Amino acid sequence: MSDLQFMELALTLAKETVGQTSPNPVVGAVLVKNNQVIGLGAHLKAGEPHAEVHAIRMAGEKAKGATLYVTLEPCHHFGRTPPCCDLIIQSGIQKVYVATQDPNALVSGKGIEKMKQAGIDVEVGLLEEEARKLNQVFFHFIQTGLPYVTLKAAVSLDGKTATYTGESQWITSRASRQDVHHFRHTHDAILVGVNTVIKDDPRLTVRVSDEVKPAVRVILDTSLRTPLGAKIIQDHEAPTWIVVGSEVTSEWIRHFTDLGIKIIQMNSKHIPIQDMLSHLGELGITSLFVEGGAEVLGSFLKERHFQRVITYIAPKLIGGSGAPTSFAGDGIANIDEALSLEIEEVCQIGPDIRIVSIPKWGGEI
Amino acid sequence: MSDLQFMELALTLAKETVGQTSPNPVVGAVLVKNNQVIGLGAHLKAGEPHAEVHAIRMAGEKAKGATLYVTLEPCHHFGRTPPCCDLIIQSGIQKVYVATQDPNALVSGKGIEKMKQAGIDVEVGLLEEEARKLNQVFFHFIQTGLPYVTLKAAVSLDGKTATYTGESQWITSRASRQDVHHFRHTHDAILVGVNTVIKDDPRLTVRVSDEVKPAVRVILDTSLRTPLGAKIIQDHEAPTWIVVGSEVTSEWIRHFTDLGIKIIQMNSKHIPIQDMLSHLGELGITSLFVEGGAEVLGSFLKERHFQRVITYIAPKLIGGSGAPTSFAGDGIANIDEALSLEIEEVCQIGPDIRIVSIPKWGGEI
Repeated sequence: MSDLQFMELALTLAKETVGQTSPNPVVGAVLVKNNQVIGLGAHLKAGEPHAEVHAIRMAGEKAKGATLYVTLEPCHHFGRTPPCCDLIIQSGIQKVYVATQDPNALVSGKGIEKMKQAGIDVEVGLLEEEARKLNQVFFHFIQTGLPYVTLKAAVSLDGKTATYTGESQWITSRASRQDVHHFRHTHDAILVGVNTVIKDDPRLTVRVSDEVKPAVRVILDTSLRTPLGAKIIQDHEAPTWIVVGSEVTSEWIRHFTDLGIKIIQMNSKHIPIQDMLSHLGELGITSLFVEGGAEVLGSFLKERHFQRVITYIAPKLIGGSGAPTSFAGDGIANIDEALSLEIEEVCQIGPDIRIVSIPKWGGEI
Repeated sequence: MSDLQFMELALTLAKETVGQTSPNPVVGAVLVKNNQVIGLGAHLKAGEPHAEVHAIRMAGEKAKGATLYVTLEPCHHFGRTPPCCDLIIQSGIQKVYVATQDPNALVSGKGIEKMKQAGIDVEVGLLEEEARKLNQVFFHFIQTGLPYVTLKAAVSLDGKTATYTGESQWITSRASRQDVHHFRHTHDAILVGVNTVIKDDPRLTVRVSDEVKPAVRVILDTSLRTPLGAKIIQDHEAPTWIVVGSEVTSEWIRHFTDLGIKIIQMNSKHIPIQDMLSHLGELGITSLFVEGGAEVLGSFLKERHFQRVITYIAPKLIGGSGAPTSFAGDGIANIDEALSLEIEEVCQIGPDIRIVSIPKWGGEI
C-alpha cells in the first residue's frame, strides 16, 4: 500500500466518528511498519484518548521505527489529555505524515515543530483538502468562534413548502425525513423559529439510535411566544434553549427557566443573527442545523451567516401563487444581488432529490 | 455482434434524428448478413424515404437472405412513400426484428402480418421499451390526437422565478438557456402566455443552427392583448399563432391576420387547455414546449394536461415572501392532492441542475 492509501485509511477512520467528537475535531491515525498496519486509532469522544494514542497503544513496542499517518496535526499542549507529540517522540516513531495543520492560529505548526526538533521526519499536506473538508465544522468554529451553520429546506418541485392553506405535512418522503435525522445528529444544535413551534409542535429530537448525544434545540423567539405546553418544552428529551429579545420580562422568563429551559436574552429588541451565533459559540455550540421556517431562513439569508444549504426536493407539484416558499423575508430587488452558491452534491433520497450547496462567499475554509 | 447490439445500433441511428422528422416518428434500420452490416438507414425528414428504404438501397443485391433490424413496424400502406413491407418482401430479406409495433390501433400489426404471410420470419419486441421511449412524442400524438406537452420552469434554489420586483433575467446560466434551445428544437411548437410576451418581449426562436425547422410560436391570449409591435409579431422568423377566446372581435383579429399571424379562436370565453391542445393537434402540432409564465403553467397543472416537466434550478438564493414561483394559479389545498411525478433524470447543466420528471398519471405510453 502507498502513503496515499494509508492516509485514506486514516481519513476513513476519522469519517466514522463525525457527529460524536464535538467540540473536538474528528481525527484518524494509522501506524505502519514494513508496509504492514501495526496500529489504528480514531478520536471517539471529547475527553477520551486522541487517535494517535489508540494507534500507538495498539502497536506497543513495535511503534519504534514506524511511520504514522494522522489526519490532523498532533497536539503539543496539555488539554484534557497529555500532548500527543510527546507520546509520538517517546514511542520512537521515525516518520509522521500529517494531512493538515491545526486550524488554531495560536498553536498551528507547533506540534510539527516539536516533532521535527526531536528528529522525526514530518511531512505535511498529504490529502490536505479531504482532511480539512472532514473537519470543516471544527475549522470554522476555531477560526471564527461561531457555529458552522447549515440551512435546511424541504420543497416541492415547484418550490413550495406548503399548500396555500398552509398544510405542509408531508411534502418530502419518509426517506428524506430520516435523512434529516442524520444531519441533526452531526450538528450540536437544531434551530427553528417560534412560528414553527406554534404551528407544528415538533420534537426536534435526533432519532438515529438511542445512543447518540442529543442535539440542543434552539428556538428563535423575539417576544417569547413559545407555548409552555409545547412538546419541546415539556418532553425533556434534549436541552431546549430559547433566544429572546431584550423586551421580554424576567418574570415571564422565569416560567420557562423553572421548567429547566435555558433563556438566552439579547441586548437588543430584535435578534441579530450574528450576535445570536456568537452567544451560541460561547456556549460551546460548534455547529447549528437551521430547519426553518421561511422567515428564519430569510433572516439567515439576509444577514448571510451560513456555510451550507441542504435542499430536499420532492417530485410533486403543488401550484398556487399564494403557497409559501422556503426562504421568505424581504428578499432582493435585483437578480444580480442574488446569493450565488456552488453545488457540492446532488443525490436521490428515496423518491426525492437532495442538493447540498455552499455559498460562494466562503463556505470554504 | 448480437441481435441486441444490431438493434441498439438501429436505435442509435434513430436517436440522431429526434426533432427533424415530425410529424413522422424517428426510425432506424440496420441490415445484416453473415454477421456483417450491409445496410444502414434512418428516416431523416417527413416526405423522404423511410429508414428501411435507405438500408435496403445501400445493400443492393446483398439484401437477399439478410436480417433486418428496425425500430418501428414497417408500414404496409401507401403514404407519401410506397409501403416498406413490399420493398422488404421484394428484396428477399429473410428475417426481420421489429422493436415495437405501430402505435396506430388501426394499422398496428398489419405490416408484421403481411411480412409473415410472405414467409419472412418476424420477431417483435427486441428493445421495445427503448424504442417506444424514443418515439414517445409520436406515440402520444397518434394515440390521443393531442400534442405531447413538456412544461419548462427555471427557478432559483429557493424556487423563485424572479425577485419581488419582478426582475427575472437571468436566473439560470447561459448554458441552461442554450439547453432550452435544444428542447425547443425537439418540439413542433413553443407556447407562452400573453403576459410573458408583454413583459419580456421574447423571440422564442430555436437558436441551435441555421438549418433547423423553426418551431411554431403559440401565444395563449384570451383577450388578444399581444402588442402588435412585439418581436414575435414583427420578426417573421417563425410562424406565430395566437389562441384567443370567443369574445375577441373579428375586427381586432384582422390587425393580426394582416401581419401573417394565425389566430385560433375558441368557442368559449376562456381557453380550456384540452380544447386548445385538440386544435393544435388538428393543425399537426405533435409536441408542445410550454415555457410559462406561472399562470400558464398553473393552468396546465390544474387541468393536468402534460407529459413531462423540465425544471432548471440555478444555485442562487433570492428570498422574499413576495417573489413569484414557477407554478401559480389557485394551487391545491391539501398535500395529498399534490401531483406526484417520477424523476427520470437529474443532471448538471453548467452551474445549474436540470431535473426531468414525468407525471405519475401516465406520462408513459
